[in-house]
Amino acid sequence: MSVRLPAAADLQAAAERLEGRVRTTPVLELAGAEMGLPGRLLLKLELSQHTGSFKARGALNSLLAAGAGSDGVVAASGGNHGAAVAWAARSLGLAATVFVPSTSPAAKLDRVRSFGADVRVVEGYYPAAATASSEWAAHRDVLAVPAYDGFDVVCGQATVGIELLDQAPGVAHVVVGCGGGGLFSGTALAGADAFTVTPVEPDGCPTMSAALAAGRPVDVAVGGIASDSMGAPRLGQTAFAVTRRLGTTSALVTGAAVLEARRWLWDRCRVLAEPGGAVALAGVLSGAVPCAGDVVVVVSGGNSADVPG
Amino acid sequence: MSVRLPAAADLQAAAERLEGRVRTTPVLELAGAEMGLPGRLLLKLELSQHTGSFKARGALNSLLAAGAGSDGVVAASGGNHGAAVAWAARSLGLAATVFVPSTSPAAKLDRVRSFGADVRVVEGYYPAAATASSEWAAHRDVLAVPAYDGFDVVCGQATVGIELLDQAPGVAHVVVGCGGGGLFSGTALAGADAFTVTPVEPDGCPTMSAALAAGRPVDVAVGGIASDSMGAPRLGQTAFAVTRRLGTTSALVTGAAVLEARRWLWDRCRVLAEPGGAVALAGVLSGAVPCAGDVVVVVSGGNSADVPG
Repeated sequence: MSVRLPAAADLQAAAERLEGRVRTTPVLELAGAEMGLPGRLLLKLELSQHTGSFKARGALNSLLAAGAGSDGVVAASGGNHGAAVAWAARSLGLAATVFVPSTSPAAKLDRVRSFGADVRVVEGYYPAAATASSEWAAHRDVLAVPAYDGFDVVCGQATVGIELLDQAPGVAHVVVGCGGGGLFSGTALAGADAFTVTPVEPDGCPTMSAALAAGRPVDVAVGGIASDSMGAPRLGQTAFAVTRRLGTTSALVTGAAVLEARRWLWDRCRVLAEPGGAVALAGVLSGAVPCAGDVVVVVSGGNSADVPG
Repeated sequence: MSVRLPAAADLQAAAERLEGRVRTTPVLELAGAEMGLPGRLLLKLELSQHTGSFKARGALNSLLAAGAGSDGVVAASGGNHGAAVAWAARSLGLAATVFVPSTSPAAKLDRVRSFGADVRVVEGYYPAAATASSEWAAHRDVLAVPAYDGFDVVCGQATVGIELLDQAPGVAHVVVGCGGGGLFSGTALAGADAFTVTPVEPDGCPTMSAALAAGRPVDVAVGGIASDSMGAPRLGQTAFAVTRRLGTTSALVTGAAVLEARRWLWDRCRVLAEPGGAVALAGVLSGAVPCAGDVVVVVSGGNSADVPG
């Protein structure tokens, strides 16, 4: 299967569409010596994005680029993508229908509802919700927004990388968490002339490792601590094509390393990430991602359930 | 009582001392229209400072400026100041003794200990710990670091304002929480030629209002939701002198407004402040602090007890 990769002009068009509509998330600069790193550690605090994760970028760019049908937009997701599509639709005055698996935590479903979406609960796991969503969309004039493997989604996530070109000039290494690969592929394409992007996977959701080993995206069983946000069943075609173009390899981290990184972020920086949001940092702190100089780590989301009411 | 106010050169000297030793905390820029404000809302995320609050700046500057005695440094505080002094001493390889009231939450005492301080628990409330600290210090060669009303403490806190001159050029209004007034006075002195600083007090700890009404700092009964970090018994002499020089008045907010602001920060920005850290924002969101254009709000601390273990 061939896939069209966004060109620089496509990424720039997304940045212009999103200007003033998504937040330029701040960067917290730490002295790497604190944690035995050779250079600075720059944390891109993407959890402070609208909806609490980078997913807002790709969702809103998709709506702005493609427009919605007369029945609005639809997505299948009980997590960050569902919230992002609901938010993006509401911010444009459009109707959103979000199919969610009954196995998603109630707090996450409430969050999708809180952005005004019509939430349809489907008995079972994610694939059941995805199927129901497709069937529903087939009979309607509606824009279906994919969670990671869509041209406009990837262009939207690329704005993380475009911001970094300004916020961290001269930094040659960026580390991101990887599930379906939307954030990875967008950031890597945006920074191709300036920085290398290392994707980090929790060992319970090794979509990229499996794809690289098989020579194509393949289904993997997903589980573990970060599976609520990184549990894509397989790497996206776009992300796979980007790994081929750039010669990317991924790093794997354990669930324990993810929890340790999350704890470290709170103890040292008072940043409360969700487990998936701490996967990239776990790669750096555990040594799975070697760092030769300054490094940017994207803290991609903060939609934790275990926070004060 | 007359008090020597820091001059611009004193603030600059503090900035040079602290360079590379404290964090330049990031600024999260929000479109004010989201919350009915006429301009941008810029959140200075000081909770991501070392030790989780701005107090690290004043504590470390005090040690660097004055040096410690042969018995190290001493402070009385069961909260953010105690942690900051412990951290500052450790970072310079010095011994710290911190007197804490037995009424402080265990989690806060553990945090002071976690930075390596010798923690002495004194039966009772803060004044008992302060008295014990003074008695202990009287017989030793030790540097006592005051919590807010010290020349070098104020110069250290002023680096928040100095950073804002770079981070928010042209912004004419800064809002900070006020207890003893260290952050207020430092920030106001640093920005005197560029921005106005509005101090916000929780109505349970109205030290500045009481001082302005009485014409001098007077003791107030403190209590309420933010008293763990804003519960200074009276406004500092330095802060009072700054209000006289600059014609400052304060805004008061209710405990409910503080909790609402704290909730808003989490829901909208995934920033988890302690109640005292959300007092300034409560002033803006409640309308107690009128805003005519862009405004910077300092989120001053994040040492909440109610977070995941």
